[in-house]
Amino acid sequence: MTTTTTTTTTTTSHAPAPVPAPPPRSASDRWYKIRLFRGMINDARRRAPYYVSDWTDAWNYRVVPATVYMYFANILPALAFSLDMFSKTDMQYGVNEVLLASVLGAVVFSVLACQPLVIVGVTGPITVFNYTVYDIMSPTGTNYLAFMCWIGLWSLVLHWVLAVTNSCNWLRYVTRFPCDIFGFYVAFIYLQKGIQVLERMGDEEPFYLSLVVSLLVFAVSYVCAELGKSALFTHPVRVFLKDYGTPLTVVFFTGFVHLGKMEAIHLENLPVSTSFFPTADRGWFVHFWDISVGDVFLAIPFAVLLTILFWFDHNVSSLIAQGTEFPLSKPAGFHWDLFLLGLTTGVAGLLGLPFPNGLIPQAPFHTESLCVTSVVADPDETGAGKGHYEFKATHVVEQRVSNLAQGLLTLGTMSAPLLVVLHLIPQGVLAGLFFIMGFQALEANGITAKLLFLVRDAALTPAGHPLKQIPRRAAIWLFVAVELLGFAATFAITQTVAAVGFPIFIFALIPVRALLLPRWLTPQELSVLDEPTASPFTMEGIGGSYGGGSEEGVLDASEDGSSGEDGMDRGKTADGGTGGGMFGRRSGEAVSVGRRSEEELAELGEGRLRAPAGVGAGAGARRMSSAVDEDGIEMLGMRVSRRGLASREGALG
Amino acid sequence: MTTTTTTTTTTTSHAPAPVPAPPPRSASDRWYKIRLFRGMINDARRRAPYYVSDWTDAWNYRVVPATVYMYFANILPALAFSLDMFSKTDMQYGVNEVLLASVLGAVVFSVLACQPLVIVGVTGPITVFNYTVYDIMSPTGTNYLAFMCWIGLWSLVLHWVLAVTNSCNWLRYVTRFPCDIFGFYVAFIYLQKGIQVLERMGDEEPFYLSLVVSLLVFAVSYVCAELGKSALFTHPVRVFLKDYGTPLTVVFFTGFVHLGKMEAIHLENLPVSTSFFPTADRGWFVHFWDISVGDVFLAIPFAVLLTILFWFDHNVSSLIAQGTEFPLSKPAGFHWDLFLLGLTTGVAGLLGLPFPNGLIPQAPFHTESLCVTSVVADPDETGAGKGHYEFKATHVVEQRVSNLAQGLLTLGTMSAPLLVVLHLIPQGVLAGLFFIMGFQALEANGITAKLLFLVRDAALTPAGHPLKQIPRRAAIWLFVAVELLGFAATFAITQTVAAVGFPIFIFALIPVRALLLPRWLTPQELSVLDEPTASPFTMEGIGGSYGGGSEEGVLDASEDGSSGEDGMDRGKTADGGTGGGMFGRRSGEAVSVGRRSEEELAELGEGRLRAPAGVGAGAGARRMSSAVDEDGIEMLGMRVSRRGLASREGALG
Repeated sequence: MTTTTTTTTTTTSHAPAPVPAPPPRSASDRWYKIRLFRGMINDARRRAPYYVSDWTDAWNYRVVPATVYMYFANILPALAFSLDMFSKTDMQYGVNEVLLASVLGAVVFSVLACQPLVIVGVTGPITVFNYTVYDIMSPTGTNYLAFMCWIGLWSLVLHWVLAVTNSCNWLRYVTRFPCDIFGFYVAFIYLQKGIQVLERMGDEEPFYLSLVVSLLVFAVSYVCAELGKSALFTHPVRVFLKDYGTPLTVVFFTGFVHLGKMEAIHLENLPVSTSFFPTADRGWFVHFWDISVGDVFLAIPFAVLLTILFWFDHNVSSLIAQGTEFPLSKPAGFHWDLFLLGLTTGVAGLLGLPFPNGLIPQAPFHTESLCVTSVVADPDETGAGKGHYEFKATHVVEQRVSNLAQGLLTLGTMSAPLLVVLHLIPQGVLAGLFFIMGFQALEANGITAKLLFLVRDAALTPAGHPLKQIPRRAAIWLFVAVELLGFAATFAITQTVAAVGFPIFIFALIPVRALLLPRWLTPQELSVLDEPTASPFTMEGIGGSYGGGSEEGVLDASEDGSSGEDGMDRGKTADGGTGGGMFGRRSGEAVSVGRRSEEELAELGEGRLRAPAGVGAGAGARRMSSAVDEDGIEMLGMRVSRRGLASREGALG
Repeated sequence: MTTTTTTTTTTTSHAPAPVPAPPPRSASDRWYKIRLFRGMINDARRRAPYYVSDWTDAWNYRVVPATVYMYFANILPALAFSLDMFSKTDMQYGVNEVLLASVLGAVVFSVLACQPLVIVGVTGPITVFNYTVYDIMSPTGTNYLAFMCWIGLWSLVLHWVLAVTNSCNWLRYVTRFPCDIFGFYVAFIYLQKGIQVLERMGDEEPFYLSLVVSLLVFAVSYVCAELGKSALFTHPVRVFLKDYGTPLTVVFFTGFVHLGKMEAIHLENLPVSTSFFPTADRGWFVHFWDISVGDVFLAIPFAVLLTILFWFDHNVSSLIAQGTEFPLSKPAGFHWDLFLLGLTTGVAGLLGLPFPNGLIPQAPFHTESLCVTSVVADPDETGAGKGHYEFKATHVVEQRVSNLAQGLLTLGTMSAPLLVVLHLIPQGVLAGLFFIMGFQALEANGITAKLLFLVRDAALTPAGHPLKQIPRRAAIWLFVAVELLGFAATFAITQTVAAVGFPIFIFALIPVRALLLPRWLTPQELSVLDEPTASPFTMEGIGGSYGGGSEEGVLDASEDGSSGEDGMDRGKTADGGTGGGMFGRRSGEAVSVGRRSEEELAELGEGRLRAPAGVGAGAGARRMSSAVDEDGIEMLGMRVSRRGLASREGALG
């Protein structure tokens, strides 16, 4: 955090292409000096001391419900996506491919990743990517799976290049702004998929019955989730409803459509194939040599797009699975995990599976389900019975068993008896599942929260609402308008044959945030409207967090070019010592920089790892931003941390 | 309120048949001394001074939205009921009869009633009554409408007898307890009617499309109502959504079913007949002489049942339209209005219309829509932004124009162009209307509120929750169990051919409350679990309010028989002077009676009209009850008053 002055300056001068092409090495300018593998090595060094405890810590009851919950939370959307890919790729991908991709991701990441809390599986965006490539390539007669395999192999190379060049240090520029837009986009993709499932059903009884069933699945899941959030019943019952409400709804309505006069109506079910065999008539190993040399190279641009998508999507999943509100104590490892992601992408390509990556609502849900919480009464409660209360997470059961176990359960689902059960699920139920997932993602999105603030009656908005800190209401409108515009552009391109290009739109939002928004909004406004995606503790391995706009103030102050120290590089240096980052945990937030010399900055930068909380020389924009990031959370209590959680879950994947 | 000691004692000794048979007159016992017409004359005397202002006060903007809102709130359920009666009485009653009954009620009550705020129309219970009589009588070959006419004429006589013998003084025993059970019952009747409408549609596309439409009507109406209650948008927008959300939803979905592929499906619409003509092939005037003499007398027991139903239903409508939370300043007149109700019942019989009476959600909605409110911030709000607020009703536009105008609008609806529009409404939309009405009635019911309290997490229930005053949780369970049993018995009989008997079940709840519950529950418990239906100001004309159980304590204390003064009679005496009741408004609540002599009671009784608020000699149960009834509302602010409103609206009719 202390080094952003210079980093931002360099971004300004070298923008707008920080990724995916790795910056050239060993130039005289220190900005270009990339220490290869440094990020990965540090990641491994920092995490290795915890590896044994990652297995021994799993002896905890929370692991059981977390495993069962993640199994359902992972498999149900996967089934819905498999139906979508099945019908849009002429049965190249089906249930078995999607399940196996989830198993691959779960096993590799649970055993080898630096952050085993991140749940890896098949997302909505990759579904769009897959069938768009199919739409483009099938008229040419190219072997589709072989082509996808080459995309995976090229992408493996690109992932590894990005991993060894420490590209995850750029993650500090990924604030809530692009994450919220991406989440909004994914939510609409969900809703659209639900409608498409229904549209394929003609115009007779099955269509209308499916419509009824999808509405009921939506309504019942919604009620379960609302009850889970309410003050009704006891805590275990609420958690049960919240965790298993949707799976049980799916089970119930799978049976429901056979009651009474509905029995006579034939509904389309989820298509499945033979256990453990690919959906298409092929072996698991893709004949990747069965393709022209031209097509091998044609796969490169697609691989670039895929890599952009995964770099963004997977890292964001990881960031928000380690959000501020989770009291994590084991370090993250973004570079190392990116390397692993390249590996799974390549393997998935070779096996003809949809590429798995970090799942956004599921990854933070996983961390959340591993939290040991206690209910505490709201200290602000007054006598007349406000009825406020909060759940305080005291500790997270950080381990690798729940992720592995849910993967093995998914593997079991590929066996004959369970595949038969899956085949019973009517497509109308899956449509309802798409609706509830999309709706809940929208409900939790940061853009929705801002829109609701804007349409809220000003007279009835509490004085303590964070957005009330912004006197200029037009600033909020502008920010939300840019967000909606970004969403609309991304969603629009997805409707065209150029849909594979959508990752570029998402990615372009990062320079928009860094370069364009500071021209229209003051640093104070940006610091309230936007915020870092993860906590400073999590961001430590990647050079600290960029945050919500305080740096713009610093940027203005330092545009005279007096700064030279490379923030990204120094971030690595600071974290260089094994486990050194641990000492700095939640301690370097309030460091204040104004117009300081390089020496002072360097001093502060080192000081960050030793300084106790609240250390800060001088005042100004930086301090204010810090108050919002950390003290603000302390002060406003649960409401803000809930908002953070909501925003996090909003970026669905 | 001050005279309840003796009143309760007399109830105990003369129970359980206070109504409907008028007590014999001029006996030596003072309890039997009925001063004929005294109640009606006093009602007229008290209200007459306000008659001119009832028209001049209508020069207020609130009258316009109130008129439009009441028109829709009255006509939409009426249409749903007309569909029900149409199909269940072989087209003896249709849309025109239901509309004309509403017009009759609106014109008579708006011009002549002592309380013109009460909206009169066709209710769910009368629908059940009508088709059950049809089921019973149609096999005998009796002229159904002539038979109904005789029921109306006998009922007219019974109503008038009840009116001149001041029977409304018994209303003080009608607490929330029977009202909530009745409301629960009516809500379930609504839901059942919705299902029945759908059941009549076979098992092909029209059935499933209607199911979809009914679910969507439900969902959209629900969302409109929730938005109306939220802090979003501005106050006028919220009021608009709350008031017109449901009507606009009906209009929208009437058009919706003609979109896209749904156009091809033929849906059953609301059946209508020629403008201004009866649905059956007859003149408006029923040939009531076209019936055997035996059937004329057979109509008497039915008329008794109808009278019980109307005495209860209409008076309760009137009570809750004048609930504590409405700052009314013009006096009520229950006796006079009961006389008018007899008149409209007889006239409706002669014209072959379903009998109109007070509409429970609509009557309080009418008062509410005439409230001039202002938004005030919750004084308990603390800095961190609790966001609580309340709407304070400062004044009610008490007048006769809105009721009359909505009746005339309904009359206009009977004309050709509007009848054609009504004919476009698909029955699936009406089913959705039944669902939302039933759901909202349940949501607002006092039984639901208690059930929600019981299933609520005790750890998360605010300390100030009114029901937390009861240490014995079993007491709440018992009270709710008795309520649910009463509901179940009433609902069960409605499913049989003996359905016309349901008013007896409802009526039997009043002695259950007065005699049975005090044996199982302490006065303190009853005072929290139950409460008077209307404010002391409203109850003044009928001898004061009985309230929520504090009287049981008094009853215990006075069971030695030392009391002799007739509470009911003295209540009348106290209100005898013209307009005298006005002085006592909201002033006599905290008067405390323990073991006092008749002289003391008499003194307090007179004192009630002069005493300022808070006067109270002695302490004990009565004071506690009073704190809950009045001070409690002041103290807890909106939450309690909302609860009161909710409970009121819960008793749907």
